[in-house]
Amino acid sequence: MTATIAKGLEGVLFTESKLTFINGTEGILTHLGIPIQEWAEKSTFEELSFALLHGKLPTSEELAKFDAELRANREVPAELLRAIASYPKGAHPMQALRTAVSHLGLLDSQAEDTSAEGRYAIGVRMIAQFSTIIAAIARAQDGQDVVAPRADLTHAGNFLYMLKGHEPTPEEARLFDIALILHADHGMNASTFTAIATASTLSDMYSSITSAIGALKGPLHGGANEAVMDMLDEIGTVENAVSYITHKLDNKEKIMGVGHRVYKYFDPRSRVLREYAAFVSEKQGKSHYYQILETIEKEIVERLGGKGIYPNVDFYSGVVYSDLGIKKSYFTPIFGLARISGWVASVIEYTDNNRLLRPDAVYTGAKDQHYVEIAQR
Amino acid sequence: MTATIAKGLEGVLFTESKLTFINGTEGILTHLGIPIQEWAEKSTFEELSFALLHGKLPTSEELAKFDAELRANREVPAELLRAIASYPKGAHPMQALRTAVSHLGLLDSQAEDTSAEGRYAIGVRMIAQFSTIIAAIARAQDGQDVVAPRADLTHAGNFLYMLKGHEPTPEEARLFDIALILHADHGMNASTFTAIATASTLSDMYSSITSAIGALKGPLHGGANEAVMDMLDEIGTVENAVSYITHKLDNKEKIMGVGHRVYKYFDPRSRVLREYAAFVSEKQGKSHYYQILETIEKEIVERLGGKGIYPNVDFYSGVVYSDLGIKKSYFTPIFGLARISGWVASVIEYTDNNRLLRPDAVYTGAKDQHYVEIAQR
Ligand SMILES: CC(C)(COP(=O)(O)OP(=O)(O)OC[C@H]1O[C@@H](n2cnc3c(N)ncnc32)[C@H](O)[C@@H]1OP(=O)(O)O)[C@@H](O)C(=O)NCCC(=O)NCCS
Ligand SMILES: CC(C)(COP(=O)(O)OP(=O)(O)OC[C@H]1O[C@@H](n2cnc3c(N)ncnc32)[C@H](O)[C@@H]1OP(=O)(O)O)[C@@H](O)C(=O)NCCC(=O)NCCS
Repeated sequence: MTATIAKGLEGVLFTESKLTFINGTEGILTHLGIPIQEWAEKSTFEELSFALLHGKLPTSEELAKFDAELRANREVPAELLRAIASYPKGAHPMQALRTAVSHLGLLDSQAEDTSAEGRYAIGVRMIAQFSTIIAAIARAQDGQDVVAPRADLTHAGNFLYMLKGHEPTPEEARLFDIALILHADHGMNASTFTAIATASTLSDMYSSITSAIGALKGPLHGGANEAVMDMLDEIGTVENAVSYITHKLDNKEKIMGVGHRVYKYFDPRSRVLREYAAFVSEKQGKSHYYQILETIEKEIVERLGGKGIYPNVDFYSGVVYSDLGIKKSYFTPIFGLARISGWVASVIEYTDNNRLLRPDAVYTGAKDQHYVEIAQR
Repeated sequence: MTATIAKGLEGVLFTESKLTFINGTEGILTHLGIPIQEWAEKSTFEELSFALLHGKLPTSEELAKFDAELRANREVPAELLRAIASYPKGAHPMQALRTAVSHLGLLDSQAEDTSAEGRYAIGVRMIAQFSTIIAAIARAQDGQDVVAPRADLTHAGNFLYMLKGHEPTPEEARLFDIALILHADHGMNASTFTAIATASTLSDMYSSITSAIGALKGPLHGGANEAVMDMLDEIGTVENAVSYITHKLDNKEKIMGVGHRVYKYFDPRSRVLREYAAFVSEKQGKSHYYQILETIEKEIVERLGGKGIYPNVDFYSGVVYSDLGIKKSYFTPIFGLARISGWVASVIEYTDNNRLLRPDAVYTGAKDQHYVEIAQR
């Protein structure tokens, strides 16, 4: 085989983008040129979503209008809530989310509008409705009544309210808002790329987002945050942490929440989340989850840092969610709740200057064959 | 900008594959090294599906076993049929198919099995169930009772039976079988690629196939066959054909069913379909659809052949389907009914030697910015 294969499309540049910049060797991430740490510290998920969609920071008027639009679009059709209630208990929340979002497309008379304006209008509604859908799935799966959205709460606050049935404290809402900011966009990650691949046939917005949910679900991508929690539960105590990691690495198994295609150094998002994880854990007398993670992190950096393998964003997010009282099976849907803004913005940006995504494979099969009658085989 | 961008990933080799070989300049297509013309003439959709999944022609025993498995798996859960019946009338059949297949995943207790064996078992069931789902959607949308599958008919015959409510003639069933064969696989086309992108995160089979449906839906891909029929209806008479094409080309608009990323010559599938389209049209006294297409083809080859633009598979498929009494809104779902075999086989082949698909973009946005307080904007 002489042809060079870009396995995993690593380093292949397939388009231009103005949204997100990543420097993987220095651990830098910016949106619109502004470092992720500043977004996390000073902005809100609503503002970052506007910025990704419009390519600029909003004025206060623009932000107020955008925020009002999100608040006004939180409701979902009763028919969709009935469908969600009919999903079997014990179904995977990401299978439920994928099905519900696809179903929402069936109920939207604007679904087939693939103009830039149509994609934007649908996208903004979906950003708003995602939280209602995810909360409804979580409550239906738990056999609880669905809680209707409230228009007087922030995006983050309203989600926690719908999920738990009571209003979060301002600190909780803000912490969750920061988690959403940190996950909102991340360049050509696998789910965003899948959304774009779907859109590149000029298919509709619901098809793109449904595809993205399917890709996010996998344990090599969004599914990793849940897998990290599984790992913590398996490890159980701080004392077991090092031997667990040693055993895994000796068996050439991957550690979840560790490693990244682009970052060969600390993922800056993991640094921010680590601080918050430390903060919430401290308040609760150092949760043992956090202590286990600290121990693993030290071990990973020592053993794998030289290979460019460091903790990624999923390493600490689960501890934060879990300290907010969220069950681990909802960690990946919550990743989607944030990433929807990046998906929508990226699809609009790509289709604005669209070309069908159609790569090729090296053919390694048989040549010059003929059909052989079945009796002769 | 000095970095080279592989726009549309044209010519980018991202993996190896043993399934399908295409020589786009000579118009050659083979599966397992056997020309598509031989498959169309001598094989069946069931046999080709086996060949794609197993990498070899089946013995008669193997084929009988595989065929029996397909027949045994045609039923879908009653719960899914109830969901399909609840979809709004007038919904896009591809939105319905995407939602129903995603829903099927919710109802399958094996859905999360991402082992090769699990993917295979789920894939075979999906190949069988796709026809039942598509026929049920078509009938529900038309306000007709859903027709249960029959295990004594072939895959093609049973689909036409469920769709129309009466058994097709052997000629009709065979013609439809040939159409399925011609569409079963086609290398790294956009929907197969999207299925692989989803699977590359190690997400489940239902997520991959749901993504593929979303990508197939677009008018640059599977949606083109329906768009060709729309064009024929718009043109109306043979006399209008040339001026319609001239007008489109003068306005730099694309002609549907024409052009291909890989073929720069006649698509061999379009040649086979053209023959059958001629055959069925002849029998019915030259349907005017076929005559319009003949006229357009001549014009396209003359005007665009030099640029490597020729009719593709979607150019003639619609006339065949329409002569079989199928409504144009079901042409794209029927493309999916065939391509599911290629999707399943390709996902299994890729995940067998998996790597996360994660390309990159050239960043063209602002650099070194800082967050500006809202009052200062
Ligand atoms: C994210 C990820 C898929 C990126 O991987 P990639 O660029 O395709 O890298 P590869 O899987 O090809 O791995 C390259 C090398 O690093 C090692 N490596 C990568 N991630 C590793 C991990 N999590 N644990 C241990 N080793 C790892 C591989 O074993 C491989 O080593 P080798 O060269 O000795 O064979 C990968 O790091 C991973 O699977 N991480 C765990 C899942 C996860 O946390 N995903 C969320 C990402 S935000
Ligand atoms: C299939 C398709 C998306 C492949 O396209 P691609 O490789 O991305 O090619 P591009 O769209 O970049 O087109 C390349 C050139 O051919 C022209 N071209 C491509 N398809 C054309 C069509 N259907 N009608 C007229 N011109 C066409 C383009 O205008 C462009 O011309 P230019 O270089 O003068 O600007 C494209 O041919 C198309 O849109 N066809 C119509 C839809 C269709 O039938 N799809 C089903 C495919 S099985």
